[in-house]
Amino acid sequence: MAKGLLISVSGPSGTGKGSVLSKVKEINPSFGTSISVTTREPREGEQDGVHYFFKTKEEFMKMYEEGEILEYDEFVGNYYGTPTVALQDMSEAGTDVLLDLTIAGSMALKENFEQSVTIFLLAPSYEELENRLRGRGTDSDEAIAARLEMARQETNYVGHFDYVVVNDDIETAAKKILAIIEAEKCRCARNIELLEDVLRINKEMEGN
Amino acid sequence: MAKGLLISVSGPSGTGKGSVLSKVKEINPSFGTSISVTTREPREGEQDGVHYFFKTKEEFMKMYEEGEILEYDEFVGNYYGTPTVALQDMSEAGTDVLLDLTIAGSMALKENFEQSVTIFLLAPSYEELENRLRGRGTDSDEAIAARLEMARQETNYVGHFDYVVVNDDIETAAKKILAIIEAEKCRCARNIELLEDVLRINKEMEGN
Repeated sequence: MAKGLLISVSGPSGTGKGSVLSKVKEINPSFGTSISVTTREPREGEQDGVHYFFKTKEEFMKMYEEGEILEYDEFVGNYYGTPTVALQDMSEAGTDVLLDLTIAGSMALKENFEQSVTIFLLAPSYEELENRLRGRGTDSDEAIAARLEMARQETNYVGHFDYVVVNDDIETAAKKILAIIEAEKCRCARNIELLEDVLRINKEMEGN
Repeated sequence: MAKGLLISVSGPSGTGKGSVLSKVKEINPSFGTSISVTTREPREGEQDGVHYFFKTKEEFMKMYEEGEILEYDEFVGNYYGTPTVALQDMSEAGTDVLLDLTIAGSMALKENFEQSVTIFLLAPSYEELENRLRGRGTDSDEAIAARLEMARQETNYVGHFDYVVVNDDIETAAKKILAIIEAEKCRCARNIELLEDVLRINKEMEGN
């Protein structure tokens, strides 16, 4: 059986990654998803193994050192990471997994898994990105400036990704991501077993 | 402006290539198509420059020698070829071109155009291929055996293509081809101008 694809979508804050990924899952609910590991305290209603795997910093760093965490990110003093073994298991079982990763996470995925597909989600422009960040109404001018500077730095990595999708419209962007996944499944390089079958049958038929 | 893609679909006789390509064009009529050059006599109602470009063998071979024909194929004593200049012109104008090519034609396309996308259309099985060939009711047992042997030889080339699509169902196969085209348009390697714009804007914003 062909391995499931590990599809990562990365993009700066405000690009609309969350909305686009929700739409992708709404259109096709069959994707596996990854539960992150975190060192932060559970919030009310959050369950271990459902929303996150909650670990101490010691446990977390031990997992990372043993290669059980693909990449990690620090946010207000807490670590967040993607567990590697779960990805491996789902992919081996033929499940396509849709991942919301940082830039570094996508790069680590690409480096570690040949069945990876990395997609960079781009806002149509910085003006639009700024409008969206302001529209949230949650950030100060200073925080917005910091997010824009972060976005600028992050988009410098776009060329390291396999695909780039501009998020002009959530549904259009979601459909592009679904097309990318469907196309990747048709790539000859991802259908080695099928191709081997074809060649084997051809060989058997030879001269019949 | 990004160049239009040159998308070729190849596959053995009986695979359903004609029906699948018709369905692709029915769903998305915007593709450019190529008019073949041939040395055969026009049939009733066929117009030069509409159905084919009709040429003498001397004219045809002169075009081929001057690199104006991508590849050619001989069929019952007549030559059929794909004119190169028209492909180049449509692609430069940003038009995606959908091509029905022989295996050799797809390989020549891949070798000559970086904007090529090659797709091999595969029948679900040789049993099904044989059923389809018999279902046409036009070929003798001998002709069917020859077509099957040709199919066997042709499918040995599947691994040289970018993509493989199994034609279980015409509409499903057509939609896969459309997904492949949409995905290819999102590949970073095909969006050099967009990526350059992003990096240029990032550079301009630096330190602001």
